[in-house]
Amino acid sequence: MRIYVDCQGGDNAPGAQILGAINALKEYDNLQLVLAGDSDKISSLIPDDKLVLDRISIEHCCDSISNNESPALAIRQKKDSSIVKGMLGLRAGKVDGFVSSGSTGAVLLGGMLRLGRIAGIDRPALAPLLPNGDGEFLLIDCGANIDCKPEYLLQFAAMGEAYMRIIKGIKSPRVGLINIGAEEEKGNALVKDAYPLLKKSPLNFVGNVEARDITADKADVLVCDGFVGNVVLKFMEGVAKTLLTIIKKELLSDNISKLGALLSKSAYKRVKKRFDYKEVGGAPLLGVQGAVVKAHGSSDAKAFTSAIRQCVKMVDGDIANAIEDNIKSIKEV
Amino acid sequence: MRIYVDCQGGDNAPGAQILGAINALKEYDNLQLVLAGDSDKISSLIPDDKLVLDRISIEHCCDSISNNESPALAIRQKKDSSIVKGMLGLRAGKVDGFVSSGSTGAVLLGGMLRLGRIAGIDRPALAPLLPNGDGEFLLIDCGANIDCKPEYLLQFAAMGEAYMRIIKGIKSPRVGLINIGAEEEKGNALVKDAYPLLKKSPLNFVGNVEARDITADKADVLVCDGFVGNVVLKFMEGVAKTLLTIIKKELLSDNISKLGALLSKSAYKRVKKRFDYKEVGGAPLLGVQGAVVKAHGSSDAKAFTSAIRQCVKMVDGDIANAIEDNIKSIKEV
Repeated sequence: MRIYVDCQGGDNAPGAQILGAINALKEYDNLQLVLAGDSDKISSLIPDDKLVLDRISIEHCCDSISNNESPALAIRQKKDSSIVKGMLGLRAGKVDGFVSSGSTGAVLLGGMLRLGRIAGIDRPALAPLLPNGDGEFLLIDCGANIDCKPEYLLQFAAMGEAYMRIIKGIKSPRVGLINIGAEEEKGNALVKDAYPLLKKSPLNFVGNVEARDITADKADVLVCDGFVGNVVLKFMEGVAKTLLTIIKKELLSDNISKLGALLSKSAYKRVKKRFDYKEVGGAPLLGVQGAVVKAHGSSDAKAFTSAIRQCVKMVDGDIANAIEDNIKSIKEV
Repeated sequence: MRIYVDCQGGDNAPGAQILGAINALKEYDNLQLVLAGDSDKISSLIPDDKLVLDRISIEHCCDSISNNESPALAIRQKKDSSIVKGMLGLRAGKVDGFVSSGSTGAVLLGGMLRLGRIAGIDRPALAPLLPNGDGEFLLIDCGANIDCKPEYLLQFAAMGEAYMRIIKGIKSPRVGLINIGAEEEKGNALVKDAYPLLKKSPLNFVGNVEARDITADKADVLVCDGFVGNVVLKFMEGVAKTLLTIIKKELLSDNISKLGALLSKSAYKRVKKRFDYKEVGGAPLLGVQGAVVKAHGSSDAKAFTSAIRQCVKMVDGDIANAIEDNIKSIKEV
């Protein structure tokens, strides 16, 4: 298995990406990596270790896409960037997967225009795994598609269901529609029109899931438009952070509580870990013709290894085919 | 000051409302209350206390509006319900404020059709106060208006700003637009069109506030459509609950942590309190011609007293006039 690693994009590039990549090699014996970016910089950071050197190749990129530039122009003009070359390489079958913590817009557009969409998918979507009480759920779409049509939500559901079934091994993933009430007639115009599409699909649609229950394990796949999804995703980060801050403040406010805090320190670490995106990895980009993971821009080495790990699983599970099958089964209805 | 109290609506009616009302009387010397509902039931729950009896009157209602019926039909047909009579009483100046934990839809419609909108307001909005790190912020709209036009968001901003300035005493309340990125061009069609309206208004508009920063004290008033607002409101409840559950689980997982948990028990109680809607009260209904608070359906006595307290402050601050002034100043731009 060969995965293309964008070593240009992200706040901590190329160091975090390279270290993350090397650590991923240790986990998977048959994994090979293409490290793409400034070849001099990359070379200088690779250890002189045969076990590593045998399994990596370095691809120099003269162009680089930043977060500030127009993704559309960048994808069109910066042909020698890691994102464009990675997507084209994936399309051509030269690599099996692609991981980047670069410009999300460029990864999305590169996915659509250079790698290409799976037949029947209008809009690929970003679909991170988020913690609920005990395990995880997939949130789709978390920001790729800001204004949606009802049929996009049905496709998101199909893509997410394929992911949770094939990659996560859940037998019959429950699909829920994020809404403001349980009843079928509730919601804005978009979800009111999406509901019946989901209902008559062959997916295990459990109905509306109220925002209060998003983390209550009512569904394995939660569907929404990209605006709502991005709000949910980012808000979760913010609330968890605020709550932990409030807890810390209260715990340090008197001596007995301080002692209590000290004794329960390891428990806290475990809690923080549950909400730590670095543990979970990045967001799979679903709906394109290959395994693509968009890692968090601020990924450190650990987060990047998690993202590569996700990509490996998506390749193993042949995510694009799994999605294509689901889309066909939906259209037959 | 006389406030009309709906003793029909809510899961714990009329007991919670009556006890909540009586406790409110103890807090405010010049407060009088109209307790509306089944007069026999209400009478049986009033203590034989002159101090209470002198300051309440009981209004019998033959009709009652449940959460399950169509608000439109209910408001039209159930003329002898507490919601209809309360709104009409407020319009006629017989009472100064109205508090209900009944059907949200009926309170909204009753507010619009029987009490009436403030001039220049297209859509009244529900605007609860939510905790951020240290204090509170106002979220508007949290569910009254599911599909919005850009100008509604400008009006929400004006209403929320008036509330935070007059009722909460914040000198120049910061108004933020919930969005998925900081840049002006970000967001869905609605927020992209609302942004310039807010920018050129005389309000202290701080720009977009990303969902990650909703609880980070970037703004005193956060504006969004009712679908997004309801998701934010309910999701906050859910995440706080999930996080506290995860914390509890981790704290009870070994003996040292358990001891730590025991010692920090009071700190936890304080944290839970911050996120407890019962402390905060209900959601003011802004944009109608009087002080209206919609209390949580499951309000207990304590929550209901908080809701009455909010209503008292809105009456004291003459919220309707404050909003009317803000709307005029916006139209002058």
